[in-house]
Amino acid sequence: MSAPEPVRIGILGRGTVGGAFLELLTARAGAVEAVTGRRPEVAGVLRRSEGSFEEILGGAEIVVELIGGTDPARDYVLRALRERKHVVTANKQLIAQHGDELFETARDAGVQLRFEAAVAGVIPVIRVIQESLSAAELTRVSGIVNGTTNYILSEMAGTGASYADALSRAQELGYAEADPSDDVGGADAAAKMAILARLAFHAPVRLEDVAFEGIEAIQPDDLAYAKQFGLSLKLLGIAERHESEISVRVFPCFLYRGHPLSPVEGPFNAVMVESPSITEITMSGPGAGGTETAAAVLGDVVSIVAGEAPVHAPRERLEVTRDLDSAFYLHLEVADRPGVLAQVAERLGNNEVSVRSVVQWGMGDDARLVMVMHECAERRFYAALDEIGGLDFLRAEPRAIRVIEEEFV
Amino acid sequence: MSAPEPVRIGILGRGTVGGAFLELLTARAGAVEAVTGRRPEVAGVLRRSEGSFEEILGGAEIVVELIGGTDPARDYVLRALRERKHVVTANKQLIAQHGDELFETARDAGVQLRFEAAVAGVIPVIRVIQESLSAAELTRVSGIVNGTTNYILSEMAGTGASYADALSRAQELGYAEADPSDDVGGADAAAKMAILARLAFHAPVRLEDVAFEGIEAIQPDDLAYAKQFGLSLKLLGIAERHESEISVRVFPCFLYRGHPLSPVEGPFNAVMVESPSITEITMSGPGAGGTETAAAVLGDVVSIVAGEAPVHAPRERLEVTRDLDSAFYLHLEVADRPGVLAQVAERLGNNEVSVRSVVQWGMGDDARLVMVMHECAERRFYAALDEIGGLDFLRAEPRAIRVIEEEFV
Repeated sequence: MSAPEPVRIGILGRGTVGGAFLELLTARAGAVEAVTGRRPEVAGVLRRSEGSFEEILGGAEIVVELIGGTDPARDYVLRALRERKHVVTANKQLIAQHGDELFETARDAGVQLRFEAAVAGVIPVIRVIQESLSAAELTRVSGIVNGTTNYILSEMAGTGASYADALSRAQELGYAEADPSDDVGGADAAAKMAILARLAFHAPVRLEDVAFEGIEAIQPDDLAYAKQFGLSLKLLGIAERHESEISVRVFPCFLYRGHPLSPVEGPFNAVMVESPSITEITMSGPGAGGTETAAAVLGDVVSIVAGEAPVHAPRERLEVTRDLDSAFYLHLEVADRPGVLAQVAERLGNNEVSVRSVVQWGMGDDARLVMVMHECAERRFYAALDEIGGLDFLRAEPRAIRVIEEEFV
Repeated sequence: MSAPEPVRIGILGRGTVGGAFLELLTARAGAVEAVTGRRPEVAGVLRRSEGSFEEILGGAEIVVELIGGTDPARDYVLRALRERKHVVTANKQLIAQHGDELFETARDAGVQLRFEAAVAGVIPVIRVIQESLSAAELTRVSGIVNGTTNYILSEMAGTGASYADALSRAQELGYAEADPSDDVGGADAAAKMAILARLAFHAPVRLEDVAFEGIEAIQPDDLAYAKQFGLSLKLLGIAERHESEISVRVFPCFLYRGHPLSPVEGPFNAVMVESPSITEITMSGPGAGGTETAAAVLGDVVSIVAGEAPVHAPRERLEVTRDLDSAFYLHLEVADRPGVLAQVAERLGNNEVSVRSVVQWGMGDDARLVMVMHECAERRFYAALDEIGGLDFLRAEPRAIRVIEEEFV
């Protein structure tokens, strides 16, 4: 039996995302082959000043469009689809503005057009709506689909910075472009919401159907005063359906604590999908960075090559280990007398367990010593716990509970 | 051209999930046909005391196993796969205990075996790991995969209830079974983590590989004291890979604020997937209820019938409306003199806009009136805003920002 043909992938564009995709495809070629049975090969990379689209098209089975903008991306993608090549794109403007034409061309040619990376970075919201929920009756899709504005609003809320200062900081960190107007004015989020609404409601939603406002006029004291009502501010996209009417909007708005999107901070994206049959699903992750966008593009490429979902086949030989590090919370009911803390601390120190926080409460018969440790080998903590369990001033069994020390964002 | 054959679905089991699936399949038959091109038909429903497995098997193209447990579910599923029927199951014990045998049988027969509903209810974590991230190098999958224990822990933390009282409440609300030991002891979560670890790391993880602890020994004061360190308690499953070693564990543990899983409260599930190329994706949603589980099963059925991902085709005629209801935050800089609040309130009242909260700050030249309204037609609020904008005591343009009034959980 001869080996299956490699799958040849033509890449259009060699900017940040193009470079990251090329790197990721090379690094994960073995994994792609393990999942799909076919080895990926680069059929060519089209740069602004180098390479021929026709040649790349001729040698490719899948075309990955990472140029951005609509010209010449639209022309390239249409030609690729007509030549019966599958297309993966990360281009939200292309799909939002020319979706009808592109989808029709793909359907006529019997090929796939995938664009997970166009909306909400690495969050697989397109797949979830189009595949997991394609037969569900979705009533609302809402979300934070622009990481730049969410970073700016988080920064204003957290530090009291003005809009202008928070924007400068976002630009320094690479979260905002030199000309940020598409992000801060809401147009970027509007294009993404047009795509989500189209897929969720199976309707030809156009970019002009989306009403949008930006965050330029937000004052730091709006955030400060609203905090007193328990409110936090987000630039939200909302696509809703009521019977035969839909609305699609992007606007800054306040959320109460407890709203699934309210804890989303910094340059993150999050999307919530609602339907009577699922209640709601919320998904969050980093907004588009080069590597994250490339990962979403790779997921689309693999799905095209794999065809239907792969049946799980174990291929890794991995040892199961139980010798792990953890941080611990330790709760001791103790007699309130001198030297208690010192003796406990000594047993911990002897076993190289380091204390992060400690609080002692109460007096006399109700004294408690509560500590949180730093991470260490679990066996060291348990050895210390054994010794502590033998101390004569303990009034009850020690209570130990693990703590995840890692903090996020 | 003759119409495509209907797709015949055999349903094993007619309990809560079986009933909900039958209802959802009937209600969404039109949507299934729109997405896949084929109309779903029920080939038969196997009840404990009614129906023949052989007959249902003979007449079905897809078998949906909703019996639960491993006997006779394992036998039925194996026979269905060997007869080259695709299988969808919601049965975590079946996959966790007999995964190797079932996957191999499915691969040999060239059919699909899908089980989205087996882990984390309606959250499409199986699809995301197996399809979106199949070529990514996952380093960790962690999550709250048991809604019963998360409800109990939330209840203890929120109300100071004892473990026993919180458990009774969970039983009253239908979040815990009469015999809750599989849930509260961690065995249920362990089975789910074995499945997630297997898929994430492409390795044959067995149920015995998963170390687990439950929440029975947690005391309300652990939660109270830990709150002072900024910690909240969850029953967490963690599957990690370090080079050629993995660990899979379930244990109660504290999370710091800011951890993506820390805001997950009540009978909800959430899963976080990490890899260098995606940073992290967090997904949350309700734990398994009948309708939610049925929705996950339907998603799997549709994916089998559709084959590869459908290219979007608009099929709905929907009107885009902009006449919507919203709640608003209103920030007014005012001269500090008598009657200001009354005059503003009158303009709102005349337009039937009702005030939810109001705070007045400052004196003299720096007085501010900040209000949050209840939801009303936007045009009514804007009419009131127009009138308010004309009041002579305003020292700056009024600032209005929408508020999402809806609160969750």
